[in-house]
Amino acid sequence: MTQPTQPLHIVDIIRHKRDGLALSTPEIQHFIHGIVDRSITDAQASALLMAIFLRGLSPQELAALPTAMRFSGDTFDATPLHTFTIDKHSTGGVGDKTSLLIAPILAAAGLAAPTPAGIPGICVPMISGRSLGHTGGTLDKLETIPGFNTQLTLPQFFDTLKTCGAALIGQTPTLVPADRILYALRDHIGTIESPNLITASIMSKKLAESLNALVLDVKTGSGAFMKSYDDSRYLASLMVQTGTLAGTRTVALLTTHDQPLGRFAGNWLEVQECVDIMQQVRHPMSADLIELTNILSGWMLHLAGQADTPAQGAVLSDQILRSGAAYQAWLGIIAAQGGDTSVFHSSRTQNAPSSAIHDDAPRIYSRTLTASTSGYFASMDCTQAGWAVQGLGAGSAKPGDPVSAHAGIQVHAKLGQQLTQGHPLITLYSEEESLLDEPYHMLQETLQIQPSAPHLQPLIREVITTG
Amino acid sequence: MTQPTQPLHIVDIIRHKRDGLALSTPEIQHFIHGIVDRSITDAQASALLMAIFLRGLSPQELAALPTAMRFSGDTFDATPLHTFTIDKHSTGGVGDKTSLLIAPILAAAGLAAPTPAGIPGICVPMISGRSLGHTGGTLDKLETIPGFNTQLTLPQFFDTLKTCGAALIGQTPTLVPADRILYALRDHIGTIESPNLITASIMSKKLAESLNALVLDVKTGSGAFMKSYDDSRYLASLMVQTGTLAGTRTVALLTTHDQPLGRFAGNWLEVQECVDIMQQVRHPMSADLIELTNILSGWMLHLAGQADTPAQGAVLSDQILRSGAAYQAWLGIIAAQGGDTSVFHSSRTQNAPSSAIHDDAPRIYSRTLTASTSGYFASMDCTQAGWAVQGLGAGSAKPGDPVSAHAGIQVHAKLGQQLTQGHPLITLYSEEESLLDEPYHMLQETLQIQPSAPHLQPLIREVITTG
Repeated sequence: MTQPTQPLHIVDIIRHKRDGLALSTPEIQHFIHGIVDRSITDAQASALLMAIFLRGLSPQELAALPTAMRFSGDTFDATPLHTFTIDKHSTGGVGDKTSLLIAPILAAAGLAAPTPAGIPGICVPMISGRSLGHTGGTLDKLETIPGFNTQLTLPQFFDTLKTCGAALIGQTPTLVPADRILYALRDHIGTIESPNLITASIMSKKLAESLNALVLDVKTGSGAFMKSYDDSRYLASLMVQTGTLAGTRTVALLTTHDQPLGRFAGNWLEVQECVDIMQQVRHPMSADLIELTNILSGWMLHLAGQADTPAQGAVLSDQILRSGAAYQAWLGIIAAQGGDTSVFHSSRTQNAPSSAIHDDAPRIYSRTLTASTSGYFASMDCTQAGWAVQGLGAGSAKPGDPVSAHAGIQVHAKLGQQLTQGHPLITLYSEEESLLDEPYHMLQETLQIQPSAPHLQPLIREVITTG
Repeated sequence: MTQPTQPLHIVDIIRHKRDGLALSTPEIQHFIHGIVDRSITDAQASALLMAIFLRGLSPQELAALPTAMRFSGDTFDATPLHTFTIDKHSTGGVGDKTSLLIAPILAAAGLAAPTPAGIPGICVPMISGRSLGHTGGTLDKLETIPGFNTQLTLPQFFDTLKTCGAALIGQTPTLVPADRILYALRDHIGTIESPNLITASIMSKKLAESLNALVLDVKTGSGAFMKSYDDSRYLASLMVQTGTLAGTRTVALLTTHDQPLGRFAGNWLEVQECVDIMQQVRHPMSADLIELTNILSGWMLHLAGQADTPAQGAVLSDQILRSGAAYQAWLGIIAAQGGDTSVFHSSRTQNAPSSAIHDDAPRIYSRTLTASTSGYFASMDCTQAGWAVQGLGAGSAKPGDPVSAHAGIQVHAKLGQQLTQGHPLITLYSEEESLLDEPYHMLQETLQIQPSAPHLQPLIREVITTG
């Protein structure tokens, strides 16, 4: 270990990791400070990232790295509220919109159990991301709500939490700047796919929320970033270990993601599906979404002391949804962040999405994939489904480009379902007719129907509570 | 292997090496082109260098890398001369001045056996380096000769070879630019000590000389960059393998380097020692230098067809030295490169170096370390001796800074020698009195005298002819 009195040099730090030594906490802090104040060059940071990629990190290093990153800029600290702060983070999926339901469910529970100071007893300071790769982004979805502001200042964020019990914002320029720098570099030098670096990136942002507890939804399967179960499980254990060492009670659920979650994937389509559910309009294709939402919320309610067991928490979550309390909390959050809640009152049909966000709503083009033969819906490439959603216009070609509100897919059948030839499988929607063709053919190739019932994994594969 | 028709992307190339795959020759060429035309960033190059450091290179990759580097800028090609081109390269040492003797020895042999076109039958196109770390640099030594120009253009280099049989220059800005870029990056990101990258660096520059044959002096011991015998042997085998695959007959001699080679270490001091030898003034302390010179030259003369065996070549080398033919060749080379040969005619004593390069020679300060007890001179830290030479003024603090001509050390005893208390061991010389103190004490600590004769390694440990 380096003596605190010795000056640290980045080349020595690189050499230590290169040679398989564990870095001391001061060495990790020196690295993070240096990338933010630019005293360490991109070349040096890249060499160290590659060395970390190939040499790995000890549990102590992996605890020190996101902690140093967390303190690389402004910090958010809800401790003065004396509330229970909790968040959920997903490793990303297709149609994965549980955040839009979980935030209001937990907010409703917190509003129902205020602290002595009169603020919600549970707060969800949700700092979310944008579309990444084939997966959707919570911010992109929320920004289809007219007026909704995801760029609150930290004081505005604080005030919304105190009033509404939840707030959903994007990463601010000054919050965890080290993560933005490191993520851009990792993308540039091919070191994204490192469980250690993914853990540091995710956990630095979650730790920056000063959470009491964190529930992680780690996806596994054809729609996940980590396709293999072992890889997903390893990532989950690293994140739980890191959160726990940092003093945040952390639980990870390994969840199967072999098909889009729920009924829709696409920005406004997903908001609409969630509003339907909160308005007690439950479509059969949303069943997996509701189940996963209640299980994740159940764990959160349990950790927050509102339920003796996670299972009781899931029951409570469903009650909050069905009672309309979640919807009321949702309206409060949306209004507090400047959103126009009148768009949620538009009439809609059960079978097709509404395009009536604005009076000048664009024409929406659609095309439907159907079962080519009778049999069981056996499998699909869910990552390709995600790319289809992006290709239809829901994703931006490069960061900052506008995304389409209405583009996306609608799911008409779930894996394992028995179908007759011609049964609709997936409808594609786009604001540009020319964008329909490629995703249609791409998806068509991946949809498999077979004579016998397929073996399917359960939605929840495993719960990891220690790293 | 990548299809030639597919466009190559640096991030994919980084990922391949990161994941332990062998890079194709087009991938290696893409990397080298990209660092020279700056389409690949320092960050990307650094990530790939670290991945190469940790994942290694296959023999095919290690052949492709220096070959791609060699063609990254201007190339030198002596083929039109129809002569035998050969060079010697040393991995660097303290007092290692064999180049200053070998170039004239081989040039003399070449002048004595001209081609039908009347040019020397052997040419030594020696592209040399500067002081690196604790080791001296051939260019720094030669530049103490007034007027001597190490920055010849390639046509001037060509002409000097045709006339003199040898020329000694520095790397030009356009010759192997990839090596300059990669070396600077490796220094910046802590990836110098990679046998693969050292091999690529050295061999790219040697292959750029379009050699028929190459003799490598790979140092091992306390004064070498590679302290361990196994590491030195591995580096030697990589270089021999790489040269052989590139079509250059390559031989490596593993030579012991546990003490300064010869009588002096320091820029002008080393030139003077070599001139002494070429003028038939042989000091006992120069015996190891003369032995190593003759063995290396012997191998070169053998490879060039001038001797049936390396041993016969060594005898021939010594004859060329003793006959004065090497000195005549030396005078020719120095004069052709603009050097003032009159400085070699100054009278000198046997026991102290001359400072009379110029009339306005500076005052030289000295201090002598002596045996603290009677016994056998058992060991020293030869790397510390090298740092002492640098610290006395022979090295530049940063690239481009001027170096002292007169600073350095004089050796009064060799390892294994039996000494009485007070026998002089090493004299330190500096143009600044204040610089004497630290090297004196640093060296004093490393000099070991013991009651019994030490076990010493032979000068030549092994000859490696296949990788």
